[in-house]
Amino acid sequence: MTNDTHDPALTSWVASAERPEADFPIQNLPFGVFRHPDRDEMPRVGVAIGDRILDVTAARQAELLGGTAARAAEACEAPSLNPLMALGREHWRALRAAVSRLLRSGSPQRDDLLLPMEAAQLLVPADIGDYSDFYASVHHATNVGGMFRPDNPLLPNYKHVPIGYHGRASSVVPSGTPVRRPRGQLKDPAADAPIFAPARLLDYELEVGAFVGPGNPLGRPIPIGEAEDHIFGLCLVNDWSARDIQTWEYQPLGPFLAKSFATTVSPWVVTLEALAPFRSPAYARPAGDPAPLPYLESARDREHGGFDLTLEVWIRTRAMREGGKPPVRLTRGAFAGMYWTLAQMLTHHASNGCNLRPGDLIASGTVSGETKDSRGSMLELTWRGAEPIELPGGETRKFLQDGDEVIMRGACERPGARRIGFGECRGEVLPAL
Amino acid sequence: MTNDTHDPALTSWVASAERPEADFPIQNLPFGVFRHPDRDEMPRVGVAIGDRILDVTAARQAELLGGTAARAAEACEAPSLNPLMALGREHWRALRAAVSRLLRSGSPQRDDLLLPMEAAQLLVPADIGDYSDFYASVHHATNVGGMFRPDNPLLPNYKHVPIGYHGRASSVVPSGTPVRRPRGQLKDPAADAPIFAPARLLDYELEVGAFVGPGNPLGRPIPIGEAEDHIFGLCLVNDWSARDIQTWEYQPLGPFLAKSFATTVSPWVVTLEALAPFRSPAYARPAGDPAPLPYLESARDREHGGFDLTLEVWIRTRAMREGGKPPVRLTRGAFAGMYWTLAQMLTHHASNGCNLRPGDLIASGTVSGETKDSRGSMLELTWRGAEPIELPGGETRKFLQDGDEVIMRGACERPGARRIGFGECRGEVLPAL
Repeated sequence: MTNDTHDPALTSWVASAERPEADFPIQNLPFGVFRHPDRDEMPRVGVAIGDRILDVTAARQAELLGGTAARAAEACEAPSLNPLMALGREHWRALRAAVSRLLRSGSPQRDDLLLPMEAAQLLVPADIGDYSDFYASVHHATNVGGMFRPDNPLLPNYKHVPIGYHGRASSVVPSGTPVRRPRGQLKDPAADAPIFAPARLLDYELEVGAFVGPGNPLGRPIPIGEAEDHIFGLCLVNDWSARDIQTWEYQPLGPFLAKSFATTVSPWVVTLEALAPFRSPAYARPAGDPAPLPYLESARDREHGGFDLTLEVWIRTRAMREGGKPPVRLTRGAFAGMYWTLAQMLTHHASNGCNLRPGDLIASGTVSGETKDSRGSMLELTWRGAEPIELPGGETRKFLQDGDEVIMRGACERPGARRIGFGECRGEVLPAL
Repeated sequence: MTNDTHDPALTSWVASAERPEADFPIQNLPFGVFRHPDRDEMPRVGVAIGDRILDVTAARQAELLGGTAARAAEACEAPSLNPLMALGREHWRALRAAVSRLLRSGSPQRDDLLLPMEAAQLLVPADIGDYSDFYASVHHATNVGGMFRPDNPLLPNYKHVPIGYHGRASSVVPSGTPVRRPRGQLKDPAADAPIFAPARLLDYELEVGAFVGPGNPLGRPIPIGEAEDHIFGLCLVNDWSARDIQTWEYQPLGPFLAKSFATTVSPWVVTLEALAPFRSPAYARPAGDPAPLPYLESARDREHGGFDLTLEVWIRTRAMREGGKPPVRLTRGAFAGMYWTLAQMLTHHASNGCNLRPGDLIASGTVSGETKDSRGSMLELTWRGAEPIELPGGETRKFLQDGDEVIMRGACERPGARRIGFGECRGEVLPAL
């Protein structure tokens, strides 16, 4: 699956892409949508390289892209990645290869096609028709279930069904957007009735999102063997959650206002093509676990359905910021430990004939590992507040406080490959209105 | 609130609008989106009158609309109602009044602006960004809860929280679209493991949908007193449901694939303006029920938050169709019996800062009354199959069979007002692939 765009020896004439810690070396080339903050123009599609953005439309207009790549670049003349996502793998691959050639050392240095990333406003990369959120970490499901049902943490359907639910598309925001603490109905277990007040148990959830490429017609499922043809690429997702709203509202129809106030996505979509060198086997089910039903089972997915992707959550409180202190890491976990693969989630989603559309966002659910330091939510890290986190400077946290900034990061590393990163998924908590 | 467009003495020069049983007399004037089946052109906005559609763009181009009405008609030059919905009540009212003048008896007869409804393809009237589904009938919640928990049918949150969940926007289809029986994971209670097979317990749910007009910015709730300014109008909704998929999948995150295979909407959106003569008090909570929390409470909503809207479900099986037999009615219920008003649902939805957008669809949940003949789903009518329905010709039904056509209708009637209807929300069950 790898080709020369993955060669770890490749370098770019963009100097910042050659820093060892760069998330966006020439082996990555993720897609995003940006706007010049000082120009009132339509958002444009770009490719991240080092600390720069390649303006795809500018490259096409300079006639630097030909054939299939040029046709793919035409689809980039849109305020979202949806038209490019709809085209499919052949077009994505051709455009990626052409951009790789354009940016590699030895090619003419075209700084006129670049702009500094820090000068651009990065947007939600797709017009998300539907956002669905899964629950694919068995460790997360076991942790959360264990808080409510210590004797029976995992429900009987978990190992058969890739559990998911519909999320809210309108409130998906790009990294950097502040998140207002929601108000909602909260009910103290000892009280007779709920009150309407700012949520007290505000939390993040560390997730990975997959953007859908070509969709499927209504009524026609997607076989597991074809599922990855329908995935354009991945991003980071913070599924902000108000645990107290959730506890009171979620029976019997699931989370609603506990989640719909905001969901943050990282702005750069790392393509499956870029992730090819980092594929790993799917989660190995413990002996005794049921095999997936045949519609969720493929040898290829079992062998390659995972990703060697390390995810982190960092926090920087207001006091830390004001004291000039850097963020501290709360969590470091592996996406490879998910019980269900992205292909299984997507195939399950369409198994009833539900139509997926280009730009739909499918999130993994909270990525939690077996160990405490790999738990992907504060609910799990503090065990519902019973074990507060101690932060530098003497602060503690059971849940998020106003002014806290949550920063998620992800990166793929493997011997023989150049490290690639996802950039950041960042948001600061604002006080309730 | 009523004005001369509601005058029951008003008549139209469109003869079919004057039939006593007409759903679309000149007092109604619902908006929809249609396409000429024999022309490959962009869908257009129209207004239903009798068995005809008024082409709003044609009326504007003929310079028959002026001022605010003309500006509203400009927003109708779109393949969806979203731009018109975004404009707000002043524009809707002006356009409605202008169309009323155009179509009333005595005005010049302009058949060139009309086309026969039966010749047009009627589409989903809005580009639905998000579809949310509530659970606002206490009778439905009690019936369904009682099947699972006979001693404790209603959960403790029900009378405090307008319970809702996110639905699937992509699979909302217009009336007349056949609905494919979904496959899914089904687990017999006696079996160790689920199977993947066509759903056996396929059902409809009779609901009312509200299309959102102007939205709210993310982070800014909508006060209850302003909620109706954000509602453009209503339609009928069939929230098709696979009960066996639902039973197995819905814990802990709610319904997902049990619902997302299809949701049918009626194509004509009856505006709140047209419904003004049919407003009624909100459901009178039984003594002892908790009062709504203050954010859900307004005197005006308590006095006028309901609608005198009668809803019906009809069925026509394949055998009935082949035998030339007409549909039979299964249910007749009143929307006025809902525990929560549409304003309460909308305000609750935005109470955490969730942004609603023009064209969003908010459905009421199954409309069931206290009596058996007003239950809005087959699950409730047959009490989960225990009391099969007997149909003419000797057929019985516990749930829907392939070839069954489900037809929903709704109408408002009141002394001193001209009856207005919603048209039909219709769909036939196709066998699983």
